[in-house]
Amino acid sequence: MKPVRKAVITAAAPSQHHLPLQQLVDRDGCEKTALQLVLDESAAAGIEQFCIVIRPGDRESYEQATGGLRGIDVTFAVQDQPRGYADAILQARSFVGDDPFLHSVGDHVYLAAEQQSCVAQLIQIADQQQCSISAVQPTRENTLPYFGIVAGPHVPRQEHLYEIQTVVEKPTPTRAEQDLVTPGLRSGYYLGFFGMHVLAPEIFPLLQSHVDDDQKTSPATLSDALAELPTRGRYLAAALHGTRYNLGVKYGLLKAQLAIALSGQDRDEILSELVDLMATRTMEAQTIEAVS
Amino acid sequence: MKPVRKAVITAAAPSQHHLPLQQLVDRDGCEKTALQLVLDESAAAGIEQFCIVIRPGDRESYEQATGGLRGIDVTFAVQDQPRGYADAILQARSFVGDDPFLHSVGDHVYLAAEQQSCVAQLIQIADQQQCSISAVQPTRENTLPYFGIVAGPHVPRQEHLYEIQTVVEKPTPTRAEQDLVTPGLRSGYYLGFFGMHVLAPEIFPLLQSHVDDDQKTSPATLSDALAELPTRGRYLAAALHGTRYNLGVKYGLLKAQLAIALSGQDRDEILSELVDLMATRTMEAQTIEAVS
Repeated sequence: MKPVRKAVITAAAPSQHHLPLQQLVDRDGCEKTALQLVLDESAAAGIEQFCIVIRPGDRESYEQATGGLRGIDVTFAVQDQPRGYADAILQARSFVGDDPFLHSVGDHVYLAAEQQSCVAQLIQIADQQQCSISAVQPTRENTLPYFGIVAGPHVPRQEHLYEIQTVVEKPTPTRAEQDLVTPGLRSGYYLGFFGMHVLAPEIFPLLQSHVDDDQKTSPATLSDALAELPTRGRYLAAALHGTRYNLGVKYGLLKAQLAIALSGQDRDEILSELVDLMATRTMEAQTIEAVS
Repeated sequence: MKPVRKAVITAAAPSQHHLPLQQLVDRDGCEKTALQLVLDESAAAGIEQFCIVIRPGDRESYEQATGGLRGIDVTFAVQDQPRGYADAILQARSFVGDDPFLHSVGDHVYLAAEQQSCVAQLIQIADQQQCSISAVQPTRENTLPYFGIVAGPHVPRQEHLYEIQTVVEKPTPTRAEQDLVTPGLRSGYYLGFFGMHVLAPEIFPLLQSHVDDDQKTSPATLSDALAELPTRGRYLAAALHGTRYNLGVKYGLLKAQLAIALSGQDRDEILSELVDLMATRTMEAQTIEAVS
């Protein structure tokens, strides 16, 4: 497999297209959008060309959000209709060509628990393992409805790597308990997708066949295509040393920003602001309650 | 003065046009943009028609951010060129007509320290006082470069009202000490604009004359026009019971969201998340420092 130099970022889901444009302050105290954060970290990890899949009408705001980035080569692919996740990735097929590529979702940010960023960890493992690989994190049973789940045995002598045998999008707890238990994880935990993958270009015909499948009652997902990868060769899962923050959940932006700020250079400033605010706001709220 | 039923919101400044579109969760736990928060609070305070002044190219994203709002009548005025604050407000002249109007800036959110919102407090005072009125808050000397500052005596028997005699945009500390001391404030504090005004339509010819002034070396501001109001009649400042959050400063969104969340229905959830996060992140950061 060639080195990973291209990335496809999806940002076309109707409910999530505004999230990559939300403002954050990164660990170094620089103000940027969530999208810029993902682009910067990916570029630092060796990505040279980006394709961002967007909705019609979003080009201008996305160009504004990425136009000022020096040395980052960005093209846009427009998903004309909201035909789902598999179709969104297919819009980047000609951009990807015959190369392996990083795919990440535009509505998450990632915070590594070590110096190396999550995306750099994943690309490094892909370069070593020379196969398609999905980042995962141990995910509790009660959040199964939100994730694609994978299962398979540990790779010998590689603590955080798993050989994927099964992929199921948003399984029920019963299905998960029957088919998706991964030995070595805590009871009630499964390997859930992290929102970041390194994929060989062979994923595209699989995506296309699922998008073209007339029998389907719901739009084809990436998991539909990934589920076929284990029959075609080695496909790994890597539990990265870090945390994903989904900006699309309630208080997702707040939690992401707090986690980043408390891990970065402004930690002391933010901690002291927090203590002040907790004291003031708790007192004020009690006063309002007392008079109302 | 007729009751205040119209509002003009400015969101056209090149560095700030994206801020009203940032996502927040309000006190009641509803996800909305900063703009929706301002619109909702203003509508609840009696505003029936809004004019939002935007940049060219921003109409689509602003329509998306306001289109879903039931019962709120929004029109857009486009400021073709970034000719400054006074020119931005002038774009709403035909919308305002002969009516008094609320003007608020799109890149702030407000958190009342009582049940009544800041905008409702201001409109109520304007209805009682029957004159133009600017919301203010005591502002420390070190932040003078960011604000328009007003000065004038207390209105007798009205603790939070001042009769404005002088308006100066971003005064130097020396100028402030000479001309802008308001009796009764703590030493080193001045009355700074809060970003919210109720104005009579007579402001428009004043704005126009400053925009047309060829002698000016910088774009005309709202303060230039407001500075003439005291010579033409009664013009008040009201120190509201609440806090403004400028989303345009570093960590502005984080601070606004935290303050709102800690004053609202999700306070206990957020407090416990904060304690968890402070513990985890502080430990992880120390681990990273220890190994690096």
